[in-house]
Amino acid sequence: MKGLKEAPGFSALSEEYLFAETTKRIREAEASLGRRVARLGMGDVSHPLTPTVCRALTEAAREMGIDATRRGYSPIGGYGFLRAAAREAYAAEGVDLGEEEIYISDGAKGELSLIASLLAPDTLHLIPDPAYPAYRDLSSLLGREILFLPGREEDRFLAMPPDRICRPALIFLTSPSNPTGEAYDEAGLAAWIDYAVESGSILLFDGAYADFCGKGRPRSILSLPGARRCCVEIRSFSKGAGFTGLRCGTTVIPEEVCLGDSRPLAERYRRAVDILKNGVAYPVQRAAEAALSPAGRRETAVTVARYRQNAGLLREALAAAEIAFTGGWDAPYLFLRAPGGRSGWELFDFLLGAGIAVTPGEGFGNAGRGYVRLSALAPRGDIEIAAALLPDLLGSLR
Amino acid sequence: MKGLKEAPGFSALSEEYLFAETTKRIREAEASLGRRVARLGMGDVSHPLTPTVCRALTEAAREMGIDATRRGYSPIGGYGFLRAAAREAYAAEGVDLGEEEIYISDGAKGELSLIASLLAPDTLHLIPDPAYPAYRDLSSLLGREILFLPGREEDRFLAMPPDRICRPALIFLTSPSNPTGEAYDEAGLAAWIDYAVESGSILLFDGAYADFCGKGRPRSILSLPGARRCCVEIRSFSKGAGFTGLRCGTTVIPEEVCLGDSRPLAERYRRAVDILKNGVAYPVQRAAEAALSPAGRRETAVTVARYRQNAGLLREALAAAEIAFTGGWDAPYLFLRAPGGRSGWELFDFLLGAGIAVTPGEGFGNAGRGYVRLSALAPRGDIEIAAALLPDLLGSLR
Repeated sequence: MKGLKEAPGFSALSEEYLFAETTKRIREAEASLGRRVARLGMGDVSHPLTPTVCRALTEAAREMGIDATRRGYSPIGGYGFLRAAAREAYAAEGVDLGEEEIYISDGAKGELSLIASLLAPDTLHLIPDPAYPAYRDLSSLLGREILFLPGREEDRFLAMPPDRICRPALIFLTSPSNPTGEAYDEAGLAAWIDYAVESGSILLFDGAYADFCGKGRPRSILSLPGARRCCVEIRSFSKGAGFTGLRCGTTVIPEEVCLGDSRPLAERYRRAVDILKNGVAYPVQRAAEAALSPAGRRETAVTVARYRQNAGLLREALAAAEIAFTGGWDAPYLFLRAPGGRSGWELFDFLLGAGIAVTPGEGFGNAGRGYVRLSALAPRGDIEIAAALLPDLLGSLR
Repeated sequence: MKGLKEAPGFSALSEEYLFAETTKRIREAEASLGRRVARLGMGDVSHPLTPTVCRALTEAAREMGIDATRRGYSPIGGYGFLRAAAREAYAAEGVDLGEEEIYISDGAKGELSLIASLLAPDTLHLIPDPAYPAYRDLSSLLGREILFLPGREEDRFLAMPPDRICRPALIFLTSPSNPTGEAYDEAGLAAWIDYAVESGSILLFDGAYADFCGKGRPRSILSLPGARRCCVEIRSFSKGAGFTGLRCGTTVIPEEVCLGDSRPLAERYRRAVDILKNGVAYPVQRAAEAALSPAGRRETAVTVARYRQNAGLLREALAAAEIAFTGGWDAPYLFLRAPGGRSGWELFDFLLGAGIAVTPGEGFGNAGRGYVRLSALAPRGDIEIAAALLPDLLGSLR
């Protein structure tokens, strides 16, 4: 249309979403190799829904066809049964929340941009580097200024607050981290909370990998003192409970988190959700409730243990190749430097040619240059292929 | 947080979403009456999923628990099976589309704001009045300038293009219309297409009620000449197929629809979806595919016929009360003027006190002042109560 301008945020975006590009190259490689490659790239899960979750999903699907049990529009914020289940699950972790502080979403990605869109456009986003590319892309799309905080391998990429107070409106923090697989300890998170309080920022805590947290690594930032003053926590059922094909998550907005005029952020969030969203499918909310039940949590723990075994196989393979890496304990990701000063994309293409798909670190930010990410969420068969081939493949590059 | 500013769009919003306010008053009325009121207010459906749809949903739910059949992240834009089914359904209406021009969404509401957010912020939105309040609210939230186009009862509220070319970036058009229940004929839609082409606008056509269209009323604006140059069409499985509790819809972006620099709008849409969304639940996409199958379409037609009978009962009641109204034929809504110069909210409160919930026309815009909307999507029992009481209740107000 003549004269019709696009949103200015597009000009700051790279042309392709990282995983759109890797998916394309993987497809080309499979065509050229004539076989399926081992997929340790995209962070999709490989286990089916557990029996408890699948039963709840199927039962609720059936209910939708019966007059007496069918459901229409979900209440704004989600069904009470799921909000109550999420409250109990948090309480079991030692985090006391009001049920009305927990909102049900269709997954983490959309919530990140929704929260960001509640704030004025002339604001700064602080984003660790490397990080989940959606933080950067949604910030660009919304036209926000970004300050990247580069992590260093010797600090296990756990970026700490900058020395100067730069008053970001939003700080994106994820622990355990994608792509580096590392998690903050209490002291690290406490430092971030202090910084957020001092700079008057909202700390958007992405806990998508909470299920993988080991001992000494807080699953929830809300378990720390002061967090209720500044933190919004987003979680997802995608990884541990395997909801990538169902879409469900929770967003916690403590009532203390306010905008400058003392207006609760949650009030603005609810108003925006009213206008922009229509809620999450009823059967999916029942499935999420089942995932939070005692049986559901036991089953998820079994799935997570299997992914941990995958990570163990990859750790051993990298140790055999004498390649240093981060992650692999508190998250289903391992992050390693490409040998011989190669770029991450070079190592990506090299491994892809040998039948192993990984993710180039460049996709996660400048500080990810020269690294690649391995995902332990892949099927066991793929993990075993990679673990068998990686020592020689990586060794050949030295 | 000190100094943290909210998005400026909030200042232009009313405090409450229309249906949040009516829901609150209905709850209070039920508490005070000590019984359930007849709910002809919110446009939620009252029929369960049809057998074909429910079977597909349940079967796909089961697949998610089995290693060999489980699905992870949905492809961007939706599964091919559903895009192909939607393409066939459009073809059966005489609209030929490329499968890649059809995108699967989690419902119409989110798509409206997503499309609007692709365009530069300093743009004008043209919105008929009265209209679905989300058009106005999402425009305000995004900080867009709005030009309302008031409809008049004597024109059945079918607003026609303004005389002057005001070059809106987006035109919101819905047919059949919520809340007035009226649908454009071919000549009306053709006039809007001409206007959009001449003014270089994108015409965002909301076909949420397409299943209710009668003869002589185009279901799809894309069936008209020239529409591919300027129209984006959004549809929903919510009303006819009863997906309000499942969330699914389609968005058609013809490849001819471009931004000023000849960049296809669809390219920007896909990039934004990549960043902001994670797709629709696999079982829901299978359910939508079933709704578009021949058996699914036959069953939906039966459900729609029942809602049409509801509308017939309401038409008779209003005729008995000698109250003029619009709608009730091509959409499940009837829109009527409150007798005696009362406001819509006054009639809303009066009818609520007598046990009938409706929706005040004020919620749909200034041109809806003094009207209320009745929904024929309510359960038959509620419709019968309303049809029995309305003649006397409305007659008493003259």
